[in-house]
Formats: sequence, structure tokens, C-alpha cells
Amino acid sequence: MGPHFGKLRELAGRVFDLASAAGLLGWDMQTYMPPGGADGRAHALATLASLAHELFVRDDFGEALEAAEEEVKDLDPDSDEAGIVARLRQDFDKSRRVPSEWVAESVRTAGLAFNAWVKARPASDFPAFQPHIEKVLELKRAYISFFEPYDSPYDPLLDDFEPGLKLATVRGIFSELREVQVPLVQAISERSEAVDDSFLRVPYDESAQWDFGLEVIRDIGYDFERGRQDKAPHPFSTALNRGDVRITNRVNPNRFGPALFGSMHEAGHAIYSQGIAPALDRIPSLSGSTLEGSHDASLAMHESQSRMLENLVGRSRAFWSAYYPRLQSVFPEQLGDIKLDAFYRAINKVERSLIRVEADEATYNLHIMLRFEIETELIGGNLSVADLPQAWNSKTEEYLGLTPPDDRRGVLQDVHWSVGYIGYFPTYALGNIIAAQLWQKLSTDLPDIEAQISRGNFTELIGWLHKNVHRHGGKYKPMDLLKRITGQELSAAPYLEYLTDKYSEIYGLS
Amino acid sequence: MGPHFGKLRELAGRVFDLASAAGLLGWDMQTYMPPGGADGRAHALATLASLAHELFVRDDFGEALEAAEEEVKDLDPDSDEAGIVARLRQDFDKSRRVPSEWVAESVRTAGLAFNAWVKARPASDFPAFQPHIEKVLELKRAYISFFEPYDSPYDPLLDDFEPGLKLATVRGIFSELREVQVPLVQAISERSEAVDDSFLRVPYDESAQWDFGLEVIRDIGYDFERGRQDKAPHPFSTALNRGDVRITNRVNPNRFGPALFGSMHEAGHAIYSQGIAPALDRIPSLSGSTLEGSHDASLAMHESQSRMLENLVGRSRAFWSAYYPRLQSVFPEQLGDIKLDAFYRAINKVERSLIRVEADEATYNLHIMLRFEIETELIGGNLSVADLPQAWNSKTEEYLGLTPPDDRRGVLQDVHWSVGYIGYFPTYALGNIIAAQLWQKLSTDLPDIEAQISRGNFTELIGWLHKNVHRHGGKYKPMDLLKRITGQELSAAPYLEYLTDKYSEIYGLS
Repeated sequence: MGPHFGKLRELAGRVFDLASAAGLLGWDMQTYMPPGGADGRAHALATLASLAHELFVRDDFGEALEAAEEEVKDLDPDSDEAGIVARLRQDFDKSRRVPSEWVAESVRTAGLAFNAWVKARPASDFPAFQPHIEKVLELKRAYISFFEPYDSPYDPLLDDFEPGLKLATVRGIFSELREVQVPLVQAISERSEAVDDSFLRVPYDESAQWDFGLEVIRDIGYDFERGRQDKAPHPFSTALNRGDVRITNRVNPNRFGPALFGSMHEAGHAIYSQGIAPALDRIPSLSGSTLEGSHDASLAMHESQSRMLENLVGRSRAFWSAYYPRLQSVFPEQLGDIKLDAFYRAINKVERSLIRVEADEATYNLHIMLRFEIETELIGGNLSVADLPQAWNSKTEEYLGLTPPDDRRGVLQDVHWSVGYIGYFPTYALGNIIAAQLWQKLSTDLPDIEAQISRGNFTELIGWLHKNVHRHGGKYKPMDLLKRITGQELSAAPYLEYLTDKYSEIYGLS
Repeated sequence: MGPHFGKLRELAGRVFDLASAAGLLGWDMQTYMPPGGADGRAHALATLASLAHELFVRDDFGEALEAAEEEVKDLDPDSDEAGIVARLRQDFDKSRRVPSEWVAESVRTAGLAFNAWVKARPASDFPAFQPHIEKVLELKRAYISFFEPYDSPYDPLLDDFEPGLKLATVRGIFSELREVQVPLVQAISERSEAVDDSFLRVPYDESAQWDFGLEVIRDIGYDFERGRQDKAPHPFSTALNRGDVRITNRVNPNRFGPALFGSMHEAGHAIYSQGIAPALDRIPSLSGSTLEGSHDASLAMHESQSRMLENLVGRSRAFWSAYYPRLQSVFPEQLGDIKLDAFYRAINKVERSLIRVEADEATYNLHIMLRFEIETELIGGNLSVADLPQAWNSKTEEYLGLTPPDDRRGVLQDVHWSVGYIGYFPTYALGNIIAAQLWQKLSTDLPDIEAQISRGNFTELIGWLHKNVHRHGGKYKPMDLLKRITGQELSAAPYLEYLTDKYSEIYGLS
């Protein structure tokens, strides 16, 4: 490690530390903070975010970056040093275009808008939330203007979450999805009587559910020496550094499924963050115009890891061949008489519903697509904030055949826009798609992976992900990493094939 | 609020936010952090501490301070604005003398020394710890040199914890203590059979102990909307801001007492921090060469609040008149047949022991005095680090009549020196003394306070403390605040009178 690179790493380390501290403050806010701490926490988070930005865009950082670039210019571009310098350059150039005042105002606005959303949602009171989302949008428009020229005004937002990805690419992919997924869900809904999941909707002891989830994710490879699971209103994962990657979860005492799949989903994220190479730790990366204390390729690449564990593993026959007897022994009353096949079908039951976070694998992307279309219209100026609820309801009708009875179960259901996450939703659907692309390649490299999983053996699975995805952190742009691994561009085909095969079998579609 | 004061408050707020974030990182380190997080946490804490210092000593802070001084110069010196500006000036002038490199090195050294201490203590391995404490001491000597000239090299250290207090004053007070407390403990030990506490040393259900403590501190006035109690290896309190003041505790399942008195002690600290006036929130203050996210008068003033609740209230007859029946109903097997008087005597049993944190009210200060004498000799250059264990053992013999069988139960028992807290120990004894001085005045102002407490009514007690102590935060120097409240200088007399009366009665001394 050369002296200039060392200096750059030190400066980057300080920025990382601030972002990492903010990560803990955010985690605590959702887990243990007493209600009285909210105001002080908003102040502290705003200070950490704006200081991280200030330190990052300072001239001394730029000078250290230039000196390090000179120092590493003859290194293998695949080396960690070259990768770190290239990623920092990319994030530095973006951050430099953004005034610190914008960052501070954006954090303050998000704090107020978030609090307004917390109140407006249960009250189904969109008008109370409207001025906040207008302010968020105004700031986003200013942000976009920092990045002129662009192909589409949505591109700079998307780039914050998916470095290098363009609106046009997402549009193309989503129209492929639409063509297959909408009729697939329609066909399934006509055969809804084919799957019974009533035995999942009875009381299941809370702590037994919690413990079963812990057992599963420990087996898969989530390292509890460098992590923990706590209760929170919504499941999430937080990477403070590669030695401290936490997840949260909640348990519905009257339903089996959401808690376990929540644990597996978040463990997918966490195993990624725990697997980032030590050499890449303590390097900040830009996400959603904010510097983050984790260094992954992108949100979609992250989501590919969580969706893979949750769905491709957790909702597979192979996985339950290994775990169903154990689950039956934990819940003999509820499952003792239920056959593995009936259980497998039940956990894969498809149902069109209003709420994204409760959506099943087959309908999930439809929720994303409607949000994506609304976002692009908002940003493109073809939709006003006042018309959001109506636009939401008509898209829901179009994609899901349902009409939200109120805004709580409609446009107000998600937190994202309140905290300025516009351009974020597509990453969920892209995560599903990437997971299937990776799985296709992984199954070629490890032909007996299903057999291994059906024996409860995850070593080669996690080893493959570690070698191909995790350890590289944010060294490569997500689409470059994907191509490097699979040899292919982003493509919906493997995902659509997976989905069609799986549900045709379950629902007896021709 | 004038514009210059507003600007100063904004800059101070950012420093506060960093210190407050560090507070959460420290709390988490002791409560929920997985082991793998230790390295990253040490980095993050070092960054937060050194950045807080850098922001605080910047020229723009000095300019804002000057402008604010000009703006408030005609205000009542007792106003919050004038108090804040004066305290910031005092802390700024101290911090300005300290180079940022020293702060960064000091935090790094403390991190390493702390880890070494964690390993050395259970192994009773002083030689492994020795180089670390030597490094700590070397840095402290450099720190002292920033403050030349001084009356004593110990003064700049003491001043970090007790603004304005001098070694000579502490020496005088401690020699008064010694004269009375050493023979008192001697006399008690000759009548040790007079008190039986065997019924406290039997199994007491852990969660029942925990809940009883919560009930008591809620009654006294700890606000759980702005606080919480979690498990930690050692009890402590952390003020992140006045809306989020947390305490921790532990429970010994085979002994009644430590958990409850731990909760009451920490609640005493927490009620102080929760009671600081909103106008004084989000102002950092210097403590132990580090900027802290809380704004209290001093450590001794803080300790006076915790010791008052723990001892003057929690180990009083009046308190147990109210709570003993309730405690008996929680633990009928252990206490059903034990009379209130026997219980009162048992919780006040005096026993000379080796470990400070387990010491009773009568012997506690002896532990402090021996540490104080060793510290002043170390700093004065009359004692080398290599001779520490021997000096410790001979002082323990002198004050307590006991010889530690190993360094674990001797010189390695306390964490303080590892993290650079030299000049801190005296604040514990001063806290006891101040508590008694405040109590004397409080009893004059509220003549029926004992009767109120014996009815379980703490409203006037906490109201008096709030009005006289808490709300002022760090606006006054501790000795000025004490004089303002009691009309007196710091004096050991009320404390020694309290101690002598209490134990003469319990042990039947003449």
C-alpha cells in the first residue's frame, strides 16, 4: 500500500466512520430509542450526514484522490487498490456537484417528511403529507439539475442506487416483465382454489418462530459473532462495518411465514455485508445522495442476495426437504398432519394484495412497476403531487385488479418517498432478476447445489456467492459485476423462466 | 436570542451531535454490540472524538464565540445565554491549548489500553498492562504541559472533571474525611456481629429484582418516555440529549441489593440529565479532555445526585417504610419473616472489602482516597508505574486493613486509568460530600421530606433538586453552584455527621 493510497484510505476512513455511526443511530432509532429521543436523533443524523459530505468533498480529499490515482495507475484494474480509488473517484465527482447546504437541507426535509408520513399513514391523510412530498420533490429536482446534461432526469436518481444504470434499460426490462408477469398472475388467480394455506394462518408461538429463524440463518452462514437480530417494527439490515452487520425482524403470532422469510431475507443482505473483503472495509460509498458506511455494488445487487435466500432457497422444495421435519417437530400441532408438498405449495400461495411488503413472489414486481411508473411521471413533470393518490389507485387497478379503499393501503403505504428515496423502488425488482441470473450461473458451476441444499448444506452456495459477489464489495459497477460473473447483460429471461416454471407446476397451468 | 448567539449555538450543536453520537456508540458497545464490532467501533469513536475537537477549536468557532460574548455582555450573568457563552469560553480556551493530534492519539491509546486491561484484569497480569498505562501517563504529562503554569500538575486533570477545583482543596477535604472515617470504620468492624445480612445472600428471582427496581425508579421520577434500562456488565448512565437518557444495570441472582441500588444510583444520574433545561440542551461540555454530549456542572455534582438517591434515600428508614411491605410481597419466602428494622440494618451492613464497586457507604471513600493518593504520586513523579501494584497493596493495608491476594482484586480492578481517567476518582468521594451538603439544605427547605419519602412521595424532593441543581446544567462551576444553593463552600462536615450518626445508631457505637 503506497503512502498516497494510505492517506486517501485514512481520509475515506473518517467519512466512513461518520456514515457508520449514522448507521448505528438509525438502527437504534428503530429498535431501542425511547420516544423522547426523536428530536435529538434527527439533529444528530443531519449533522453526521452533512459532515460526512463536507469531509468527502473537501479539497484535501480531492488532492489525496489525485495523488492516489497517480500511485495506482499501473496496478491491475481488478486490484483492490485500483477498485477503491476508481469507486471513490466516481462517488467524489458526484458528491462534489452537490452543495453541502443541499445535503443539510435534504436531511432536515427528510426528517420532517418522515415524521409527517408516520402520522399521515395511519390516518390515511394524504393532504397532510402532500406539502412534504412536494418539498422532497423540489429538492430532488434541484439535485437532478446538478447533473446536467443527462438522458433522462430520472437517471441521476437511479445512478445513486444503481451506479451506471439508465432509465431506458430499466424500462426495457420492465416491459419484458410486464408481458409475462401480468398474464401469469391472471392465470394463477383463476386457479386460486388450487392452493390451501389455512394451516399457516393459525397461532404459532412467537418465540419458537423467532428461534427457528435464528437456527436457519445460523445454518446458512450468518455469523452471529459479527451480527445479531433484534425486534423492530419493520425488518431491515444495517452494516456498520464488516464486523458488525445487524438484522431486525418482527413476528406475527397468528401466521407462519413472514418472520422466517424476513430473517432469511435480511440474512441474505447481512451475509453479503459480512463477506466484503477486509481490504474494502472502512470505505464509504454513495447511496441515494448520502454517504453510507458500507461498500456494496448496489442496492439491486444487495437485493439479489436477500431475495435469493428468501425465495430461491427459502421457498424451494430442496430447502424444505431438509428443514420441514425439523419445523414439524417445533410445531407438531399445526403441521404434524401436513405433508411436505402441501406445505411447499402453501408457502408459495399467490394472492393479489394491496400491500407491497406482504406481496408474494409472483405479484411482487407488479407493485414495483406501478411505483416506478409513478416516479418517472412525477420526475418527468407529467404528474402533480396532488394527483398522486388517483394515479396510484388507477395503476393498482391496472396491475393488480384491485382498488385501495384508502390511501393508507394505497399511496401512503411506503416510507421511501418521505425520506427522499426516489429511484429506489426499481432496485427491488432488479434484485429478483439478478438473483435468477446469478442462480442460473451458480447452478451450472455447482450442478448438485439442490442436492446440497436438500441436505441442509449451504457451504458451497455461500462460498460461491462470497467468491463471486460478496468479497468484491463496491469495487465493480453492478452491471459490470453481473457481466463478469454470468457473462451476460442484465436480462429478465432467467427470472421469468424460473417464475413461469415454478408457478405452472404449483398451480397446474399449461 | 441574538443572531451571533444563534450562530454559536448552531456550531456548538454540531459538536454536541458528534459527542452525543459517540455516547450512543459507547452505550451500544456495552449493551448490544456483537464481539466482531470492536475494531470498527474503536475507529468510529476515535473519529468522532477528534472531529468534535477539530470543529470546536476551529477559528470560526472562536469568532462566533467572540461575537456572541459581545452580544450577551449586558445580559444578566445568570441568564441561560450568558451561562452558555461563559461555559463554552472556558471549555474552548482549554480545548484550544490541546492539539488535535494529541486528542486523536489519546483516543487511540485509550482504545488499546482498554482492550489490554480487559485481558489483563482476569489474568491478574499487571506486566501486560504496564506499557499501556505508561503510554497513558506519558500522554497525560504532555496534556498537563499544555496548561503551564499551574499550582500542581494534578490541577489541569482535576479541572477536566471538576471545573475550578484544585488539588489543595481536595487534599484538605480528604484529610478531614480520613480523621473521622478511618476510626469510624475501625469501630464498626469491632462490632461486626451486630448486623446480620444473611437473608439478603440467598436466591432472589432475577426478573422480579429487575422489575422491582424499575417500579421504584419510575415512582421516584425517572421518565421512561425519555429513557430506558438495559442489561450491561457494569451499571452506567448515558445522556444522549435531555430526551434520551439511558441507564444500564445487572442482577446478581443470589443477592438482593446491588441491582436495586444500582438502578437507584443510575436513576439519580439520569434524572439530573433529564432535568437539564431545554435551553441548555445540545451544548457540548468538556469532560476528561473529551467533549461530551451532556451539559452538567461536573462529575461530582452528578455523583451527588446518584449517591443521594442510592444512599440518602435508598438506604434510609423512611424509604423502606414506604417500600418494604411491597418488597416483602414480591419476595415473601426470603423476607416474609424479616422485620423492617432488621432489613434496614442488613442493607446498611459495613464490611471492609477489596473491591470499590462493592463497597458500602462507610468504607467507600477509603477506596477513593487510596486511589487519589496513588494518582497524585504518579503524576507528581514520586511513584513509577512498575511500583503501582506494591503501592496499591500497601495503601489498601493502611486504609482497609486488607491485602489483595492478586492484582485482579488490587490495582487492576478499575477501568479508569486505562481510558485516561486520571483525576476522576476524587469526584466519587466529593459526590458523597456534596450529596450530604445538599441534603442538609434540602431538609431545611422541606422540613417534612422524610415523612414524604416514607409515604413514597418524591415529588417535592425531585422538584427541589430540579429547581436548584438539574435545570442549571453546566451553567455554573460546581463549587459556585454548591455555594449558590447552600451558602457554603465545599465541606466534609455534613457528610461526616450523617455517616457518624447513621452508623453509631446501627452499630450501637457510643
